[in-house]
Amino acid sequence: MSSESLFGAVLGRVLPVDKFWIEQAQARQLQLTKPPGSLGRLEEIANRVAAIQSTMVPSIKNARIVLFAADHGVCAEGVNPYPQSVTAQMVANFVRGGAAINALARVAGADLEIIDAGVAHEIPETGGLIRRAVARGTRNFCQGPAMTRPQAVEALMLGIEMADRAAADGCKLLGMGEMGIANTTTASVLTAALTHIDPALVVGRGTGADDACMARKRSAVDRALSLHLGHIHEPLDLLTRLGGFEIGAMCGLCIGAAANRCAVLVDGFIATVAAALAVQFKADVRDYLFPAHRSTEPGQVPLLEMIGHRPFLELDMRLGEGTGAALAVPLMRAAVAAFTGMATFASAGVSESAGKDS
Amino acid sequence: MSSESLFGAVLGRVLPVDKFWIEQAQARQLQLTKPPGSLGRLEEIANRVAAIQSTMVPSIKNARIVLFAADHGVCAEGVNPYPQSVTAQMVANFVRGGAAINALARVAGADLEIIDAGVAHEIPETGGLIRRAVARGTRNFCQGPAMTRPQAVEALMLGIEMADRAAADGCKLLGMGEMGIANTTTASVLTAALTHIDPALVVGRGTGADDACMARKRSAVDRALSLHLGHIHEPLDLLTRLGGFEIGAMCGLCIGAAANRCAVLVDGFIATVAAALAVQFKADVRDYLFPAHRSTEPGQVPLLEMIGHRPFLELDMRLGEGTGAALAVPLMRAAVAAFTGMATFASAGVSESAGKDS
Repeated sequence: MSSESLFGAVLGRVLPVDKFWIEQAQARQLQLTKPPGSLGRLEEIANRVAAIQSTMVPSIKNARIVLFAADHGVCAEGVNPYPQSVTAQMVANFVRGGAAINALARVAGADLEIIDAGVAHEIPETGGLIRRAVARGTRNFCQGPAMTRPQAVEALMLGIEMADRAAADGCKLLGMGEMGIANTTTASVLTAALTHIDPALVVGRGTGADDACMARKRSAVDRALSLHLGHIHEPLDLLTRLGGFEIGAMCGLCIGAAANRCAVLVDGFIATVAAALAVQFKADVRDYLFPAHRSTEPGQVPLLEMIGHRPFLELDMRLGEGTGAALAVPLMRAAVAAFTGMATFASAGVSESAGKDS
Repeated sequence: MSSESLFGAVLGRVLPVDKFWIEQAQARQLQLTKPPGSLGRLEEIANRVAAIQSTMVPSIKNARIVLFAADHGVCAEGVNPYPQSVTAQMVANFVRGGAAINALARVAGADLEIIDAGVAHEIPETGGLIRRAVARGTRNFCQGPAMTRPQAVEALMLGIEMADRAAADGCKLLGMGEMGIANTTTASVLTAALTHIDPALVVGRGTGADDACMARKRSAVDRALSLHLGHIHEPLDLLTRLGGFEIGAMCGLCIGAAANRCAVLVDGFIATVAAALAVQFKADVRDYLFPAHRSTEPGQVPLLEMIGHRPFLELDMRLGEGTGAALAVPLMRAAVAAFTGMATFASAGVSESAGKDS
């Protein structure tokens, strides 16, 4: 079986959640000792997790953030204030435990896996690093396709493999994270191509581009779209021509999680484009996605509309790494804890409403 | 010393946070291995907690939710779909551990204290309950003042006592919670009186008022304002004439927390009115407040503007009990964990920007 056929087989395993469980969960919510609907979106979270796991006693066990790092050929266009070598330096920082995601995953009680999906430079420290580089960075999509079709499939299958491994480890909640200097440029190009929105509206300052940098970023996005849009006929073309290895892997992680009936926390802009791409591959992936936070990047807005869920947190963050996903892990736990741990009106002897009270 | 003089003495202990620590914290944030400002509002949280604790190694130890329950005379006006007896029933549910706040505090790793600040009905279960009822519910403020001036001071001092006790126990983060059938009506009246906003704009559906209920609620608010507004000259008049015992106690908790240099998570609408009242007593209390979530109640919006901070979570919740505060505890921990746990550019060997890279 070719890699592409294997990928197609995984897509075939992704099924929508069973509405029966949603209805069962909604009925239980009405019995819990609170006014109907008063826990707001926590109720929707719990109901969907119950449906994903096909149980009235869902759990958020062994939450895990999976962070894919890769480099981007478009970095050569001067779209970013940081040098490309920072990707490798930050991967070393992740491995040593010194980055924001390390602190946030730790305090959230989530495991953290770091995967080299295609970093260009030598990574100075590698203890614990999962080395699975598809190549040493993508090519510059201002000049040609970012990767080959087999490379795109390899990136997708890498994410699926990580989801399968997490499921085998009993993980009930995955979070997506990424690191890749210049990857907001890649995400902007993909967003424009996915949503057909004016590219000027989806290019943001990323980690801190100044005006000259922004002008180069906009130019790179425009040139990439001119070069490739006419050749894009299916989701795999998008990833091949305009993607990044970490974006392909995160897309695969969403698909693999859905195939394993595991909930996924979507991080910021880059992760959201990967999730939206996964929804292009198979619309039912949507049922497994939980956007964690609203990034300051403007391009995330139309992608969230494609995915069809509102994010939980609005903290003006724009770091990536899975930091937003890690912050949302306790919210998912709380939603499920209320659903499974609360007393019912009957068991607690609490009156449901004035009409039912003596 | 009279209770009122004691209260004045506590207000005198509330000081603004020292800007020196804010600046020190901001400088440290720039050294951490992330683009400047990329952790967004998590950075502001950590910087303010550092300033509150006057240290570069702040902590969120022994987080505690303090839940005050009390009844409201205005309940007799038919402003709520639940009977007044539900307050006592829910207090029993809190004590037994079956309510939403029990599940959410547990999963957040926060202690939970339940205080009877003035419940009208017999509480069927009381193991662990802190019995400090100022009276068995307030009087109906559509007919006269809700409480006496000494009762208002007693409610405030109850909150201060709970803050002092928490500080003595090493608590570095307090969360405010409340339970009281009909207390969104009380909160709406207080909000209109505090903000001078059209009362029609600050009356919401609370835990689920239907149209007839809403009409009675609006009428009660209008009559209360007509009766009392001319007699309100200082914050204590507001609490005395239009308050609730749990609102007074939560207001005292904010003031007591500030006096003890402890951060406070503000919950939903009712808690926010108590926090805004605390800011009326002493503007510097503001420096210690962290609004946790945006409630669906419209009256919370102008109160948040008075307090001057944006909430973190927008989950369409309208339950109270401190549920929003409990959800925000992990966010506070995360903000502080990133601040204290991350590597610096120098220690991690990460390039700060293209300009500084070779």
